[in-house]
Amino acid sequence: MPIRTSEATWRGGVRDGDGEMALGSGSWRGSYSFRSRFRDDEPAQSTPEELIAAGHAGCFSLALANNLEAEGYDPERVHTTADCHLEMRDDQGPTITRIELETEAAVPEISEAEFQDIAEDAKTNCPVSRALSGVDIALNASVDT
Amino acid sequence: MPIRTSEATWRGGVRDGDGEMALGSGSWRGSYSFRSRFRDDEPAQSTPEELIAAGHAGCFSLALANNLEAEGYDPERVHTTADCHLEMRDDQGPTITRIELETEAAVPEISEAEFQDIAEDAKTNCPVSRALSGVDIALNASVDT
Repeated sequence: MPIRTSEATWRGGVRDGDGEMALGSGSWRGSYSFRSRFRDDEPAQSTPEELIAAGHAGCFSLALANNLEAEGYDPERVHTTADCHLEMRDDQGPTITRIELETEAAVPEISEAEFQDIAEDAKTNCPVSRALSGVDIALNASVDT
Repeated sequence: MPIRTSEATWRGGVRDGDGEMALGSGSWRGSYSFRSRFRDDEPAQSTPEELIAAGHAGCFSLALANNLEAEGYDPERVHTTADCHLEMRDDQGPTITRIELETEAAVPEISEAEFQDIAEDAKTNCPVSRALSGVDIALNASVDT
């Protein structure tokens, strides 16, 4: 399976410096800063947390489609948002405490109960959820049949 | 501190479907697929793993600059690549097993031994490393004084 390589550069000190992150596929290069990371006033800049959130949303959505197929369903669409919470902890400094996944799926002929079971399993077992074992992960899932 | 929200959509089945991930800042939207994720033959497409790798490289680089400043040094530049390894595990399926960070820093007047200690601490304690506690994280660090 592939090894994917991305990169980042930070120039200068923490508060007066600036950074850039770039995806290995070459499709994106974006800036980040102390203000975008730790304040709420540079929403147009990136942060490591929004990259983690996008990767988690992408992994979970594919895992849910996979699990639905494995149970004999025909998933039409899975859409997921991921909220990544960065909080200051007295003992550890800035800490990613929680990721909230909110997913809406279109899956014909599935019961609500079975959908919830399958979605919960994808939340627990998708590769990015297992990698992020230091983070509390919550899921709010709904299905349109 | 900010909550950052990103999103993803998967359409269709796993092998014949396709996905899209998007950063909450609006600066990027990219496609991913079964082939880009689990094969090596779509390097121009994205994957969740390259987003995780970019976020980790970005977080570590800023944490290293922060730790160097806290110890009285004046970091000029920290450049980090992150290799994210996705491997098939018999019992768990595709698994993010390992992230290898390779960092090169420009820091005047630091000893090699002190730089290595500070870099190792950043590897262990940066927010994304702590979040990714399910993953083996390795660091190869070098400094130009």
